[in-house]
Amino acid sequence: MNKPNRHIFVCTSSRPTGQQKGMCLNKEGVSVMMKFMEEIGERDLGGDVAITNTGCFGLCEQGPIVVVYPDNVWYKKVSADDVEEIMDKHIEGGEPVTRLLI
Amino acid sequence: MNKPNRHIFVCTSSRPTGQQKGMCLNKEGVSVMMKFMEEIGERDLGGDVAITNTGCFGLCEQGPIVVVYPDNVWYKKVSADDVEEIMDKHIEGGEPVTRLLI
Repeated sequence: MNKPNRHIFVCTSSRPTGQQKGMCLNKEGVSVMMKFMEEIGERDLGGDVAITNTGCFGLCEQGPIVVVYPDNVWYKKVSADDVEEIMDKHIEGGEPVTRLLI
Repeated sequence: MNKPNRHIFVCTSSRPTGQQKGMCLNKEGVSVMMKFMEEIGERDLGGDVAITNTGCFGLCEQGPIVVVYPDNVWYKKVSADDVEEIMDKHIEGGEPVTRLLI
């Protein structure tokens, strides 16, 4: 397999059992996930940038949480409207979006 | 927050909608997740090593999938019995377990 150069993880509050507990989900974690998928597709970055939904990162009050590896950059309170900026500045430009950093 | 030095992601087939589709789940992804949590606790590594369950990585035939960042190391067909070796050699020892690499 070709490993991604960047891997975006988006909390959608999925518990291992399938039950969903809430905060990032309620705060539109799924919309954030879908917007990232759309942007990755439109920019034809599918080979370089992976995206995966996750369970809880333990920072629920600051959700929706987005984590980017290998950078180890953690974003808080991400909305679907923030996704283009993260894609432009960070994923394509290499500089984290400071206003959203945890 | 203190960022983890290593972050272990375990596929438990959790879809963003909460529905679980299957393969890593059926192949004991949840047991793998639980075993990692137990080992991290017993070794008192909770501050350094994070663990998060995920949705599908798109490599279902090779599941359960475990991904370790920032190393960008991808493991296939991981069972609960493999977890101690991954913890010993890779997470604590710094060397990936080659027999499980994708």
